Amino acid sequence: MLCLKKALLRCKTCGAEYDAGTARFRCDCGEPLDLVWDGAAIDTNERCQARRYAAFFPFDASEWTSLGEGGTPCVSIARFADELGLKEVAFKNESANPTWSFKDRGTAACIAHARALGYTKVGTVSSGNMAASVAAYAAAAGMEAFILVKGNVADEKLAPIAIYGAHLLRVAGPYDELYKESLRLGAERGIYYANSDVPFRAAGSRTIAFEIAEDRGFDVPDWVIVPTSAGGNIRGIINGFEDLLRAGLTKRMPRFMCAQARNNSPIVTAFANGWTQIRRAPDAETIAHAIDNPFPPSGNRTVAELRRLNGAAVSVPEEDIIRAQADMARAGLFAQPASCVPLGALRIARASGIVKEGESAVLVTTGGGLKYTTAFAAHKLEWRDCAIADLPDILK
Amino acid sequence: MLCLKKALLRCKTCGAEYDAGTARFRCDCGEPLDLVWDGAAIDTNERCQARRYAAFFPFDASEWTSLGEGGTPCVSIARFADELGLKEVAFKNESANPTWSFKDRGTAACIAHARALGYTKVGTVSSGNMAASVAAYAAAAGMEAFILVKGNVADEKLAPIAIYGAHLLRVAGPYDELYKESLRLGAERGIYYANSDVPFRAAGSRTIAFEIAEDRGFDVPDWVIVPTSAGGNIRGIINGFEDLLRAGLTKRMPRFMCAQARNNSPIVTAFANGWTQIRRAPDAETIAHAIDNPFPPSGNRTVAELRRLNGAAVSVPEEDIIRAQADMARAGLFAQPASCVPLGALRIARASGIVKEGESAVLVTTGGGLKYTTAFAAHKLEWRDCAIADLPDILK
Repeated sequence: MLCLKKALLRCKTCGAEYDAGTARFRCDCGEPLDLVWDGAAIDTNERCQARRYAAFFPFDASEWTSLGEGGTPCVSIARFADELGLKEVAFKNESANPTWSFKDRGTAACIAHARALGYTKVGTVSSGNMAASVAAYAAAAGMEAFILVKGNVADEKLAPIAIYGAHLLRVAGPYDELYKESLRLGAERGIYYANSDVPFRAAGSRTIAFEIAEDRGFDVPDWVIVPTSAGGNIRGIINGFEDLLRAGLTKRMPRFMCAQARNNSPIVTAFANGWTQIRRAPDAETIAHAIDNPFPPSGNRTVAELRRLNGAAVSVPEEDIIRAQADMARAGLFAQPASCVPLGALRIARASGIVKEGESAVLVTTGGGLKYTTAFAAHKLEWRDCAIADLPDILK
Repeated sequence: MLCLKKALLRCKTCGAEYDAGTARFRCDCGEPLDLVWDGAAIDTNERCQARRYAAFFPFDASEWTSLGEGGTPCVSIARFADELGLKEVAFKNESANPTWSFKDRGTAACIAHARALGYTKVGTVSSGNMAASVAAYAAAAGMEAFILVKGNVADEKLAPIAIYGAHLLRVAGPYDELYKESLRLGAERGIYYANSDVPFRAAGSRTIAFEIAEDRGFDVPDWVIVPTSAGGNIRGIINGFEDLLRAGLTKRMPRFMCAQARNNSPIVTAFANGWTQIRRAPDAETIAHAIDNPFPPSGNRTVAELRRLNGAAVSVPEEDIIRAQADMARAGLFAQPASCVPLGALRIARASGIVKEGESAVLVTTGGGLKYTTAFAAHKLEWRDCAIADLPDILK
């Protein structure tokens, strides 16, 4: 069994603390939990998250089940900086992970935690990226996986999950009830549900912050913009920058922007209205399918974090998401629609003055464009059929 | 304009040499060319190929157009080592590149070369991975791209190329004629055709060798197994290991294995029969679509390199490719079928005694599984529909 060092899980909302060595996924108050662990050292001889940042986790590096998650590129694109009058616009391209989304970081941390607690079964509730990620890491770790997806997920989205050999269930019913039922049943049946905002998934997301800082020589950007669904990823990234600051590796915090699709933006709505409690959003369709969570389990905490750290929350209309996807692809980055919401949000925030001239921004590109091919229909894509003999006339 | 340092292109077959500062894609004798450049230094503070291995290329690091290619994980999977009685079986997962295949390494090098020569237009002849890669890097570099794909490529394969904004032509006619006509027309019309085995594409593939060696502390594996189509990638990887040896960074060469689908295996056939010249293979269908090249332009050279270096060439039946894809996915690595041919080849080579007990092998996983979703039909994939209320009975 993998050895877990003594660490705590803390609720930032009510202050309660729990031993990280127990199977505990949320606070008794209902809010999410964060890993408390003081270790901080970077092994610069290693490229992959599990070994490079092992000191930030209460496990031994040699004990991780890793598929080589992390170490993704942060790509600065001058044309967007020029367009917006900014010093820099860079994209942290999380599609360069083993299952082509940021989820692999948190999954790797959850699998390590599950193994440390003696679990042999894992699962998740997801409509795509996280399902594939948990299925892949469970396969790598030799664990049995029980993946639950929403009832409205199309058949074509299931094959890329099933290929990893997991038990795959498409479950009719409200998504947030499914989330809660999975944690309840998991506790009863010995299945570790590595859901979207559980403590070790958020802890894995911290490594996005570590890499952004490292790639910039520990000079943090003015803004970090995160497409936000459950809220686990943005929580983790915030915690990561706080860990760096506490360890003396950085001198200040960036500001954080939560980016959501306007059709499904409960966190943006709560932030704008000064609410402390998320209200369920209408479950409207959005092309940013990967972040259409109408009642996010880390919503309250995300709103609180944004207020505490002078952040922002911006929602993006469908047509701006589609335009951002086209513009990013035409700069060489083909991302899934949800991952293009940050560029749309940055444009809106710049126009409204939230982001100031000359500032720098890093946008988290959470997953690759091949993840959601339905989005091609939103673009006017063209090609032409011809014969070899026609080429001299065509290529001019 | 990007500055090109003085370097040579050499034909390993006839010995002819050319100035790398001219637009020269093949030798006058018809065989491919290799970059000759003595620079060798690794900048270990950098993660991405363009900066980490810049010294191995005749450009300044700051002048590359990079999307963060390279720095992919090499994942050791114990169950395959156990199955085959080997010391190690590791997978160099090239799907963790910006367009999710190894092509980005060579494309980045070609774009740098094209810019150095003053080109503003680039192109390629490809049925998939290379087309997307060249379209993406051309977009990033602000160059116009003219992509030519085979006449039999399905509509659904074109959208992931067209999204990058390239001119996309689906051209009826023999693939090898299209290859030659693209180079001819490119020279005439000022379009740099970054085809499958041009010198700077093969030069980019060397970084796969650099990373494999680095990840193992410069202790090279006994075998490196490469899925082989045109032959440009395996040539480049061989050159990379030779560069490391010449620079004193490694002590020996690995042995190389060319892995092809049995339905389309002209290099394996030539190698087995002792031919020096490739004969056109029957253009049979294979699930390993990405490597179905019946008359590979670097075929002769690849056969010669394998003989010179005591290598091997193994072809894999369709059912073994499909089995390898399933087995790799069930170990956490979902690769396109062509990228699973090496595991099939290793199994055959181990059974026939080519690979000996206790040896180590690194298999190049050239591209991700989402690249070729048609392959799902070859697998018996299962899922189940239910309601939340059914879960207590199902999850046991």
